[in-house]
Amino acid sequence: MEAKEISQAVIGRLPRYYRYLGELRDEGVERISSQDLSKLMAVTASQIRQDFNNFGGFGQQGYGYNVEFLYSEIGKILGLDQQHHLIIIGAGNLGQALANYMNFERRGFIIKGIFDTNEQIQGKQIRGITVQPMDRIKACVDEYNIDIAVLTIPKDSAVEVANTLVGYGVKAFWNFAHVDLHLPKSIKVENVHLSDSLMKLSYMISCD
Amino acid sequence: MEAKEISQAVIGRLPRYYRYLGELRDEGVERISSQDLSKLMAVTASQIRQDFNNFGGFGQQGYGYNVEFLYSEIGKILGLDQQHHLIIIGAGNLGQALANYMNFERRGFIIKGIFDTNEQIQGKQIRGITVQPMDRIKACVDEYNIDIAVLTIPKDSAVEVANTLVGYGVKAFWNFAHVDLHLPKSIKVENVHLSDSLMKLSYMISCD
Repeated sequence: MEAKEISQAVIGRLPRYYRYLGELRDEGVERISSQDLSKLMAVTASQIRQDFNNFGGFGQQGYGYNVEFLYSEIGKILGLDQQHHLIIIGAGNLGQALANYMNFERRGFIIKGIFDTNEQIQGKQIRGITVQPMDRIKACVDEYNIDIAVLTIPKDSAVEVANTLVGYGVKAFWNFAHVDLHLPKSIKVENVHLSDSLMKLSYMISCD
Repeated sequence: MEAKEISQAVIGRLPRYYRYLGELRDEGVERISSQDLSKLMAVTASQIRQDFNNFGGFGQQGYGYNVEFLYSEIGKILGLDQQHHLIIIGAGNLGQALANYMNFERRGFIIKGIFDTNEQIQGKQIRGITVQPMDRIKACVDEYNIDIAVLTIPKDSAVEVANTLVGYGVKAFWNFAHVDLHLPKSIKVENVHLSDSLMKLSYMISCD
């Protein structure tokens, strides 16, 4: 409930907290103070406390946060305590790279289908999932209650495909196509524009 | 010069302007008003004018911006009027996907070498570039004056490899490894943490 009022900036930082806490947990660390977490993550301790206060503070007492508890609570806020069903549209190198990335599955993101227009790729197995033609998408969405469509297709087809998928009931897109999707407000879109990212780096270099 | 004072938020928006202006140019559009650009990009016209004023305003008169000029000027600010030499460390699916992405070359990002620890992949050709073992990186950096190293390797090796590359003189990293590199301040790092991005999407879904 209260999560609705949280700023985008705070949300943007949660996955990084989750990542560091997961590493601490894997190393067997049980408690950590905001000061120590601050040093590790190179952010101020007051920023950490402010961010966590958005979620009730996670109960730091005099002797620090419980790592396991904090990791688990942030995971819940990020929706990682639930499984999400994904389909990947576009089985090129990028689609295959994402399909092969085991960590997604470990976090509850389960790939239920991979689709491509290219007949040469159709029938190929990627981590046990057969690449199917595009006209099989609807059946897959209907069968598996797909939450997220991953778009790793060229920008020319991405807009149309996204609209079609919205018609099938898909409510969230992880969009790698180099185009802004203009979808109804209720549809969630997270863009990964790799070219934009590379240009930012180029800008940083050229300012020197 | 003046570009140094520009906020990160403005910089972050420049690649998107560049993308839209490139599309307008490709469609043969010669002039566009801030109002029309605003509608197209779904940002306010005043935001556009404010952003552009950071760079002298690009001379909009009563009848709009010159698309070709604006595209070219923003390209210069982003350093796209210069060639950049890249190496890719990690020739897995993601490294191959990036190597195969032709648009980078068109924007002046030239891949000069691809490296991998995996002997099975070494010797393989990716767009005419032979995957080489890691001990050949230094020779490549010395020969081609490499500006940017793209890290598409697991997080366990990324920190060490990055430190080695800094020792070779590499000054910028496009980091896909799921770890924060802690490098000297003079080194530029642009992170693409795909898991973090997917978690943000998961958050958006679970808030509904």
